Amino acid sequence: MQNFSYDHLSRFTYDMLTQIGCPESDAKIATEVLLSADLRGVDSHGVARLSGYVRLWEKGRINAQPKVRVTYETPSTAVVDGDSGLGLVVAPFAMKVAIEKAKNVGTGWVSVRNSNHYGIAGYHAMMALEQDMIGISLTNASPLVSPTFSKERLLGTNPISVAIPANEEPPFVADMATTTAANGKLEILQRKGLDTPTGWVQDKSGNPTTSANGVKDGGALLPLGGDREHGSHKGYALGAIVDIFSAVLSGANYGPWVPPFVAFLDPLPNLVGEGIGHFFGAMRVDAFRPADEFKSHMDNWIRRFRTAETTPGNDKVIIPGDPERELESVRMKDGIPLLEPVVKDLTQLGERFGVKF
Amino acid sequence: MQNFSYDHLSRFTYDMLTQIGCPESDAKIATEVLLSADLRGVDSHGVARLSGYVRLWEKGRINAQPKVRVTYETPSTAVVDGDSGLGLVVAPFAMKVAIEKAKNVGTGWVSVRNSNHYGIAGYHAMMALEQDMIGISLTNASPLVSPTFSKERLLGTNPISVAIPANEEPPFVADMATTTAANGKLEILQRKGLDTPTGWVQDKSGNPTTSANGVKDGGALLPLGGDREHGSHKGYALGAIVDIFSAVLSGANYGPWVPPFVAFLDPLPNLVGEGIGHFFGAMRVDAFRPADEFKSHMDNWIRRFRTAETTPGNDKVIIPGDPERELESVRMKDGIPLLEPVVKDLTQLGERFGVKF
Repeated sequence: MQNFSYDHLSRFTYDMLTQIGCPESDAKIATEVLLSADLRGVDSHGVARLSGYVRLWEKGRINAQPKVRVTYETPSTAVVDGDSGLGLVVAPFAMKVAIEKAKNVGTGWVSVRNSNHYGIAGYHAMMALEQDMIGISLTNASPLVSPTFSKERLLGTNPISVAIPANEEPPFVADMATTTAANGKLEILQRKGLDTPTGWVQDKSGNPTTSANGVKDGGALLPLGGDREHGSHKGYALGAIVDIFSAVLSGANYGPWVPPFVAFLDPLPNLVGEGIGHFFGAMRVDAFRPADEFKSHMDNWIRRFRTAETTPGNDKVIIPGDPERELESVRMKDGIPLLEPVVKDLTQLGERFGVKF
Repeated sequence: MQNFSYDHLSRFTYDMLTQIGCPESDAKIATEVLLSADLRGVDSHGVARLSGYVRLWEKGRINAQPKVRVTYETPSTAVVDGDSGLGLVVAPFAMKVAIEKAKNVGTGWVSVRNSNHYGIAGYHAMMALEQDMIGISLTNASPLVSPTFSKERLLGTNPISVAIPANEEPPFVADMATTTAANGKLEILQRKGLDTPTGWVQDKSGNPTTSANGVKDGGALLPLGGDREHGSHKGYALGAIVDIFSAVLSGANYGPWVPPFVAFLDPLPNLVGEGIGHFFGAMRVDAFRPADEFKSHMDNWIRRFRTAETTPGNDKVIIPGDPERELESVRMKDGIPLLEPVVKDLTQLGERFGVKF
């Protein structure tokens, strides 16, 4: 494990993206989105994925110079076609459209097709905060998850992020996969040779397993809840809603047809749409009540929950977004730790493209 | 257990509601909402609750003749004041406002304060379906749930319902508490003298328990996920989002201040808002793409999932809404089964008000 400064990783990412042909403004925003994952501790969605994006570009599945555009709209809705661009570029574009609509009519809702992986969901939802808006960000993803009672992988980890502004308190920012555990946590256990808790994974026959290699060996991640008795039908329904809002509304691929992130797997034949799909929402807080009033009640909400009496062995109730924000300030100061294989991968990537890591 | 016809229970409910002073049109819609829970198998939210509503009316906490009104609006949003009316009346009013807004600007979003328990979330979401809209329905509720690491009860079972139209297939209708299990399931286990699975309940010291009496004895229901390792911070975040959308946006009570449903418990002093809160959304499908196109892709989505290969011992993957719809047609034909204590309670209720059960 080595630490790298935000500026170092940021510069490398920007240089790599311009090297593959991204316009400067696109490279800038994509870098910021990608690195926000590293800062906030979602290491699996940060710079570790850069070579994955580049391989998709090499396969022709990512367009480095997309013409991202609104293809249909009403006063409060829009559909955006990402022209196969980086989701890291397409998503902020679409979220801005949602925010503009909210300025005009109170709320804005944008469904996106023909995009690619968009980094962490939370970045896009949080764009709404500085406008005193609630931000919502959803995306579908490569099928790795089996619905309750299904042996097949039909859904992605399909995250939900909701960001809500407060006044003196930091904002409430939920950002979560609709599975019991995200794939990144499996990778950590794999490296350590440890088993998973129950309810995270099933094997390729559809039986519960605690093998951290379960998904790699043809099994699947499980929806939040783990099994029927513990409410996995709810996690499945949430993942399904994310899929439908992101892709059936926009004309992207849904369910098992969502193209895989890894370049060595080809998309299925007979696709049902274009690329992967996202969904964004922005709601102006003062479309409901004066913003100051709302935000001071949010302060009260946050303080009441944060100071609640705790269960044995725990010292405080966590407000969604607290751990990520705290880590962000630590990593901005002390640097971002990268695992040895990631350092090697980035070094080799840089060498191939003449960019020094 | 005795079976009663839908018409019998419907007539009794309507008569009781007019007897306490509800206008005829309010009694009619409230009866339809309440009974839809019995038809769809959410027995804890149906006619078994009628005497609970009446007791709240007797305490002066439910207004039988409310002036429900929009107090603030933008083209895509509104705030509704329920004037302490039955949620069973206030919620359909507010959902209609959301639908009208969606007709005009693509989507409509309504947050409600000063209301009471609104029956099953799904009824209201499903109102959008016949307009070719996606319906969303959320509500907060009496605090029975402890966030991850909290010993205190700070949230209700805060359900999420999302209804999505299809073409030849029946609609997709998710309707779920954001807890591992709803309170009604605990009651069933209590009657049978059985323990709960892990992850449903904690005791009053904040330790995990499998006692079905755990909540009654001062403990709490747990957020979907059950514990941190199984993702309870996600269920907690979902319940929190429902609470904030329903109450902090509208000016209703939130968190531990939500007034209890049972009339023998008084609301807390120093309330932070008025009554309980709901949140509704309606999105016109053709505000994104032609409705026929959307609905035929929904058919394809539903068929692909329903016919997926299953895990051992299961014969099909269930689409959210399937079990409730199937039960509804059985119960419409064969009647609605009521437990002996419920029959007795309704009989006595009728006697008190001169309405024959």
